Amino acid sequence: MDEKKLAIIATKGTLDWAYPPYILASTAAALGYEVEIFFTFYGLQLVRKDLSVLKVSPLGNPGMPMKMPFGPDWFKNISWNIPNIIQAGIPGYENVATALMKQTIKNSGVASIPDLRDLCVESEVNMIACQMTVDLFGMDKADFIDGITEWAGAATYLDNAQTSTVNLFI
Amino acid sequence: MDEKKLAIIATKGTLDWAYPPYILASTAAALGYEVEIFFTFYGLQLVRKDLSVLKVSPLGNPGMPMKMPFGPDWFKNISWNIPNIIQAGIPGYENVATALMKQTIKNSGVASIPDLRDLCVESEVNMIACQMTVDLFGMDKADFIDGITEWAGAATYLDNAQTSTVNLFI
Amino acid sequence: MDEKKLAIIATKGTLDWAYPPYILASTAAALGYEVEIFFTFYGLQLVRKDLSVLKVSPLGNPGMPMKMPFGPDWFKNISWNIPNIIQAGIPGYENVATALMKQTIKNSGVASIPDLRDLCVESEVNMIACQMTVDLFGMDKADFIDGITEWAGAATYLDNAQTSTVNLFI
Repeated sequence: MDEKKLAIIATKGTLDWAYPPYILASTAAALGYEVEIFFTFYGLQLVRKDLSVLKVSPLGNPGMPMKMPFGPDWFKNISWNIPNIIQAGIPGYENVATALMKQTIKNSGVASIPDLRDLCVESEVNMIACQMTVDLFGMDKADFIDGITEWAGAATYLDNAQTSTVNLFI
Repeated sequence: MDEKKLAIIATKGTLDWAYPPYILASTAAALGYEVEIFFTFYGLQLVRKDLSVLKVSPLGNPGMPMKMPFGPDWFKNISWNIPNIIQAGIPGYENVATALMKQTIKNSGVASIPDLRDLCVESEVNMIACQMTVDLFGMDKADFIDGITEWAGAATYLDNAQTSTVNLFI
Repeated sequence: MDEKKLAIIATKGTLDWAYPPYILASTAAALGYEVEIFFTFYGLQLVRKDLSVLKVSPLGNPGMPMKMPFGPDWFKNISWNIPNIIQAGIPGYENVATALMKQTIKNSGVASIPDLRDLCVESEVNMIACQMTVDLFGMDKADFIDGITEWAGAATYLDNAQTSTVNLFI
């Protein structure tokens, strides 16, 4: 197989789940793949101009490691096991978790979502946004980035997927 | 590639995650794909006769846009940011969120899940249900739709996936 | 197509979402597939030596059936509808849900995660762990199983996916 083509459907709209599509797409583009991402459902949050809406929620995700991104090593190495009641009881808790994750990402030298997204656009990743979702949630197209190459639906996605060598639903 | 075949594993059992498998499957069938959905884990909820069990939960999903599906535009355009504590504290909150989403879907002219599922069955989508999950959760086969074409396991799924041009784990 | 190759990205770190990668990988290996799993993000929890960290959370997952794995049939057949407030309000609730699910799995004769994982390692499933995630969350490599065949990144995953006949993002 000589052609290399990656087609991703990005359906989740949180900070943590923004990484897989953007890391895989930018890496694939660098390796010479033709790449497209079809943003649909909550995934449309990933192509908004304002990415500050992206948050993480440890609520209902007992698989999320929670560590502090600052302080001495003994402090950073504690795995905080924060009961759901405390998470649910503090209205701003998701903001705290989001800030902690952003700082952790910065400290470890991993690129931020805005940087990875810019990289995808510069690498000519085909960014397709789902027209039906925009209609469904009454979103305003002016809120989305210029890098979107097409507004389309499931039929367009399937056409692209059919000729791809790697298909992923994220 | 002349053949077009889509194989989906549907593993989630909520109202919002019922859309991707049924929209993609019915669209693909209309485009001439051979289509199969393998319903497993929580995804078995999607082939129950009684679909009223399908709900959405904004809890732990900060990516979910929450807007009111009625009233004047200025009212509908507010993004409600409902703290988790309020969501968690009202036992019927998921029912409210589910009703809001159903009304939003109806208002925007998007088909309902029962309609999309009927369309899949009429389009001869191969609906395969996971035998192991039924045994695991002690479910009653009488609760599932007649449209199920086969009760099978992972080996059957893999056989189908191996000959598909598009594979998706939803 | 004569070759059969399955490439999975495992990204979730809870007890329930540990099943799909390990069941599909071990089944595929038994059917003669070449198999690889790329463990990344929360999915790295699945290759820890200590699997007792794996939990399930019904919180925010209204699709999860909750039944008691013991007692007379009339008792086991009740679908418990436990409000989120009670779940969130009891710090140990996820431990209870986890214990209930483990007992349910044991009662129905389904293999445990440690057993399925051992089976994968014995079947020579290629277990690749994501180096970036380990760096990001400050994990200690000593905490992971010896069965890991390689520490690598997205480029290695894509190379494997490109030559696979079935690709799944779990």
